[in-house]
Amino acid sequence: MITIREVAKLAGVSASTVSRVINGTAKVDSDKKERILRIIEETGFVPNEAARTLFRKSAKTIGLIVPSIRNPYFTELAAYIDDFSLQCGFRPFLCNTGYDPEKEKAALQMLISMKADAIIVASCSEYIKEAIKNCPVPVVSLDAMWSGPEVAACIHCDYYEGGRMATEHLIESGCHNIVCIKGPQYRYSARYRYQGYLDVCKEHNIPEQTVECDYDFNQGLAMTEELLKKYPEVDGIIACNDIVAISTYKVLYEQNISVPGQVQIVGFDNISFSKLLSPELTTIIQPIKEMAEKAVELIANNELTELSDKKFIFPVSLIARQTTK
Amino acid sequence: MITIREVAKLAGVSASTVSRVINGTAKVDSDKKERILRIIEETGFVPNEAARTLFRKSAKTIGLIVPSIRNPYFTELAAYIDDFSLQCGFRPFLCNTGYDPEKEKAALQMLISMKADAIIVASCSEYIKEAIKNCPVPVVSLDAMWSGPEVAACIHCDYYEGGRMATEHLIESGCHNIVCIKGPQYRYSARYRYQGYLDVCKEHNIPEQTVECDYDFNQGLAMTEELLKKYPEVDGIIACNDIVAISTYKVLYEQNISVPGQVQIVGFDNISFSKLLSPELTTIIQPIKEMAEKAVELIANNELTELSDKKFIFPVSLIARQTTK
Repeated sequence: MITIREVAKLAGVSASTVSRVINGTAKVDSDKKERILRIIEETGFVPNEAARTLFRKSAKTIGLIVPSIRNPYFTELAAYIDDFSLQCGFRPFLCNTGYDPEKEKAALQMLISMKADAIIVASCSEYIKEAIKNCPVPVVSLDAMWSGPEVAACIHCDYYEGGRMATEHLIESGCHNIVCIKGPQYRYSARYRYQGYLDVCKEHNIPEQTVECDYDFNQGLAMTEELLKKYPEVDGIIACNDIVAISTYKVLYEQNISVPGQVQIVGFDNISFSKLLSPELTTIIQPIKEMAEKAVELIANNELTELSDKKFIFPVSLIARQTTK
Repeated sequence: MITIREVAKLAGVSASTVSRVINGTAKVDSDKKERILRIIEETGFVPNEAARTLFRKSAKTIGLIVPSIRNPYFTELAAYIDDFSLQCGFRPFLCNTGYDPEKEKAALQMLISMKADAIIVASCSEYIKEAIKNCPVPVVSLDAMWSGPEVAACIHCDYYEGGRMATEHLIESGCHNIVCIKGPQYRYSARYRYQGYLDVCKEHNIPEQTVECDYDFNQGLAMTEELLKKYPEVDGIIACNDIVAISTYKVLYEQNISVPGQVQIVGFDNISFSKLLSPELTTIIQPIKEMAEKAVELIANNELTELSDKKFIFPVSLIARQTTK
């Protein structure tokens, strides 16, 4: 590989002049600049990123910590963060932790040591919450509804309203026996959606009927089977997310129960697969794209250093497709 | 943030001794070493990654260039590369290019400037092929069946055999009117699968019946509609990949054509969604996990520098689920 010194020699200038052109740190005579850029082009010279980062204040890097890119919700979040970061001149650095505290620790340390400009955390494990208290890099909590002075900003959507909307939609669609597959209650999203369901039940004098399930396809299969035994009269199901809604549909399909004829289903998230299914899934739209955009915007506009514990809550909406009437 | 000098002062040693302990570059007296490690632990000191990379030969980084993490096939590939890289002590750096030559160029330059140990390319755009000719970092082409002296190793699976298997399975399942939705013919995977279909047709004296389609859900919908008009007697469909198989099922579902009763479907790839669907998709399994493992293994074992244009071809298999009889 060609070095900066060789480029300088070919251009008949000093290495620091080449550096000034590459980094735009000071004005260089336009003739010289053109000559240097031509030689860079011809030789295929690539500046050493590690050397540049050492002397720059900002690494122009946005770190993203997600629990699992195998989960389509996080894949979409990551893809949007990726798009917006590049648009704003930052490189996105994705760390996939699989809910493993060791990997979370390694990811945090790596991003700090890379001098990332900010870290977007779409996870709320106890470990991450603790570790971030001493993080020298600003942190944005995304879709985790986890806030506090250690977090510059917290971006999430209105889970409670989502729970209400799903329940009201099933009532309006003629359901009399609604069962809520509530998600893991240690997660804010699950807890608030469940609270929304509960409040609507009370307002309509409808009994609470629930089973509990992780955000997981296989557990969704098992809990739907349990639900059908526990509540054989069910005619409407609120699944805790789209993946579990897909499990629910699968169990009903295998048992020849027609959807939406006999049982109607609502999911949460609007992952892209929800509209590829047949029947297409009725679900609560979380504005993933807008939330991702907000997170990157705060970083790119350098607004984070002035923020502490600032909340941005996005509205949700319901899209009625083919699993409800 | 605490610096290496401050750690050195607290431990009563020189900064270069601390550096030797962190990087393991030379032996340090065990008493001193323990003291240094304790102070690093207590102060939460994080070594500056940029500074370390400058003085190390290897950045312990594996770059991965994929066209789209929104495509579940590439998401799974990326997730496996991620897992195996971390297991081998490398950090994975994922670049998502959206088939955009500008982003491909930026990704390549970034990975080179980061001193990545190797770059895994799961894309075969003309731009990437050209650009990689001068790449100073070893390149592994993964699932792109693109080889040549500029590539250290090329890992893919037996697309041709996959095309044969899918066709033979439909014949054995009683289909008499098979239509092949052939994929984009500039892609090796699509071309070889189609050739497999063609050869089995010839061997069984079956007429060739095809439409052509990109690896894309929406185009899959349009092409399935065209297929039903062009070949109204169809009773078996080979979709060019699982995503298009999902489109195909959707169109048949909307037209009340029963699957597998009236029409049977086979896909390719075995993306994880293929078994979440109802009915579950019969498909050709590509050993994504094993291919990803091989790619990382070649890099971690430092085998790449000795290789040029080495091919690793993985066998495929068929999994019969619910879209065939």
